[in-house]
Amino acid sequence: MHKPSHRLFRIGETPTSRIEAFSDGVFAIIITLLVLEIHVPQVQGKDVSAALADSLLAMGPKFLTYILSFVIVCIWWVAHHQLFHILKRSDRGLLWLNSLFLLWLAFIPFPTALMGDFPGERIAVMGYGTITTLAGASFTFMRYYAFYLAKLVDESIDRSLLRSAMLKSSLNPVLHSIALLLAFVDTRLSIALYIILPMTFFIPSKLETEIHRKRTGL
Amino acid sequence: MHKPSHRLFRIGETPTSRIEAFSDGVFAIIITLLVLEIHVPQVQGKDVSAALADSLLAMGPKFLTYILSFVIVCIWWVAHHQLFHILKRSDRGLLWLNSLFLLWLAFIPFPTALMGDFPGERIAVMGYGTITTLAGASFTFMRYYAFYLAKLVDESIDRSLLRSAMLKSSLNPVLHSIALLLAFVDTRLSIALYIILPMTFFIPSKLETEIHRKRTGL
Amino acid sequence: MHKPSHRLFRIGETPTSRIEAFSDGVFAIIITLLVLEIHVPQVQGKDVSAALADSLLAMGPKFLTYILSFVIVCIWWVAHHQLFHILKRSDRGLLWLNSLFLLWLAFIPFPTALMGDFPGERIAVMGYGTITTLAGASFTFMRYYAFYLAKLVDESIDRSLLRSAMLKSSLNPVLHSIALLLAFVDTRLSIALYIILPMTFFIPSKLETEIHRKRTGL
Amino acid sequence: MHKPSHRLFRIGETPTSRIEAFSDGVFAIIITLLVLEIHVPQVQGKDVSAALADSLLAMGPKFLTYILSFVIVCIWWVAHHQLFHILKRSDRGLLWLNSLFLLWLAFIPFPTALMGDFPGERIAVMGYGTITTLAGASFTFMRYYAFYLAKLVDESIDRSLLRSAMLKSSLNPVLHSIALLLAFVDTRLSIALYIILPMTFFIPSKLETEIHRKRTGL
Repeated sequence: MHKPSHRLFRIGETPTSRIEAFSDGVFAIIITLLVLEIHVPQVQGKDVSAALADSLLAMGPKFLTYILSFVIVCIWWVAHHQLFHILKRSDRGLLWLNSLFLLWLAFIPFPTALMGDFPGERIAVMGYGTITTLAGASFTFMRYYAFYLAKLVDESIDRSLLRSAMLKSSLNPVLHSIALLLAFVDTRLSIALYIILPMTFFIPSKLETEIHRKRTGL
Repeated sequence: MHKPSHRLFRIGETPTSRIEAFSDGVFAIIITLLVLEIHVPQVQGKDVSAALADSLLAMGPKFLTYILSFVIVCIWWVAHHQLFHILKRSDRGLLWLNSLFLLWLAFIPFPTALMGDFPGERIAVMGYGTITTLAGASFTFMRYYAFYLAKLVDESIDRSLLRSAMLKSSLNPVLHSIALLLAFVDTRLSIALYIILPMTFFIPSKLETEIHRKRTGL
Repeated sequence: MHKPSHRLFRIGETPTSRIEAFSDGVFAIIITLLVLEIHVPQVQGKDVSAALADSLLAMGPKFLTYILSFVIVCIWWVAHHQLFHILKRSDRGLLWLNSLFLLWLAFIPFPTALMGDFPGERIAVMGYGTITTLAGASFTFMRYYAFYLAKLVDESIDRSLLRSAMLKSSLNPVLHSIALLLAFVDTRLSIALYIILPMTFFIPSKLETEIHRKRTGL
Repeated sequence: MHKPSHRLFRIGETPTSRIEAFSDGVFAIIITLLVLEIHVPQVQGKDVSAALADSLLAMGPKFLTYILSFVIVCIWWVAHHQLFHILKRSDRGLLWLNSLFLLWLAFIPFPTALMGDFPGERIAVMGYGTITTLAGASFTFMRYYAFYLAKLVDESIDRSLLRSAMLKSSLNPVLHSIALLLAFVDTRLSIALYIILPMTFFIPSKLETEIHRKRTGL
């Protein structure tokens, strides 16, 4: 019954390549747009050199939040690809959940600039964590939908690996929401956690190491 | 008579992939640029915390119009793909009609920022609806051109499905122009309709459901 | 002697697809960035509605230059594709001539905003024409390089078609430089010509029509 | 032992095409965003024409740094492709080193605008050189990692060519750091070197010429 005429209304038939290419474009644009929120300081007066140096020094938090957001978006890019790599097809639900995830991610330049301008303000620090939590939660739900609700995963994938990936994904928004709540104690605690959390991504998981050991025999 | 030397002047011979890739790039850039119209508030004075909180709260309409435009552009992206999915080739006319459609779509960050800054002003609310109406009308005309004027559609597609898609497309600019005209009564009516209209996109059409039922036998 | 080890230093061996994809990205970004130069007016005072309407009306030239530049970049996109469509390979020279062309094109948002803000100023109107002339001249030289200097063209292409395309390309920067020089008489003459010139692109050339007639037998 | 289920955790298995497409997007966006840092001058008063001409003339350094950064990013684009062209696969390490390289490159619009606004200030001139040095050093390390640490290079490539490419890459950040240090003597020396260094890229290396001579027999 799969007649070509049905394709008009069946976006779900398409492979994942289209969503991936679109998302890749969005990721690339976000990391490149981040710098636009850093404005050249406008200094005047007698000693321009000293004033410029002072202004640039005062912009330290802006440079650091730029790097932080850059790293976070790059990590999402890798995680996004790892997810779509094991999907055998996409459907309309996945398309919209992916759009929801991109909605939060594309918003990141704003809280980045806000926290860069007001690094000591609780509302700015919590705003940043809110967006990373929402992005993380959307991603976790997209993974859950793909793995268990719509069953879009390649059947050859080991179920235990899916469970472990699911767990790791779920942990991310939980930790980010803890980080943002710590701002009620001290905003510096939140910022410290925002910086530490992405770093954990670079530690290869035990499972990953195990798999790699098995395969390569090392 | 299809000698390669003719290709120089026959852009119409190319498949649709090139227009699609170009349009995808434009869609991805638009949804990511939207955030650049949201500027970090500049607060000063004694109580920075309270002033910042007030400023962010006052920016509520800006955040909402951001989400609205994000969703609308994503819906256009899906509709655009669904249209090009059933075309078997492109020609110069389609190329220019597509450019006309992208002209209005790429303009959307401006009315988005305008309505976000002046949510109660009739001219701002009507400006937003004017652009969505023009985008919708251009899309409808592009569809009409592809379906009936240039006959670019895959012949295997059922004619009745084309008619129903054509009707759905035509309705969109009509409803958006009604929404914008409602601003003469009350701008809140217009905004309400701007929000409701995209939502109807998520309701699968009866026809769509029927087709799906037939094919899957459920 | 074409050993793979030579590829390191032979970018010229690659097909044209890479330059095309890169250029397509730049084209898509330019047309989407143009809107960022149109800022929401900042109005205050008693009658916000009237002030906003006045501001938007005064922005008319900005909207028109936006459309003009959008159309011009779209035309360049089509011309660029038509050129690369008949090339059988690229080399380092083409790569750099293409970059030179993109240098002028990527600059277009600035003269667009300048002429939009100062539509009556000679320097602004001439600045716009200078950039379109430089872009046109770069493109013509790139075509000349590809056709006659580096001989990158598919051999099956009829020589007379190349000559006619070359002539058409050469005319473009000449006409744009005439348009910019007319600003010494009256800036409105320049602007009128800026608008008329892209329109001529939509008139199918006699040759084109002839070829099409022959092939289709109509 | 290469079961599909392992793919979930093995991003290193993927070919280089994904990183290349992503990087290409970032390159294209950077060169197009550069223009956004050039703002239309805001002039008022009696003689708008003269004031505008003066303002544009005063923007000379901004236009020149725009061209400089445009050329530098284009050169990086070519160098990036030449590197990835001889890699037979990518791994997680390469992915992150590439992201580090893009971090500095995506930042370039800021020092470009800074040096354009303050061409005589030592801190602005040194800031520009710092970013180009860091980008160069990241690229050199990425090359070193790909060539010798992770051995991602196509085995058929002549080792001596790798060594010579490695040497050329290492020289770049050294020369850029010398250029930035010269700002302690005179900022004009630094700027002169920033302009001369990219030009050396256009001189075909002796080795390159030799290889080309051998292959073509000319």
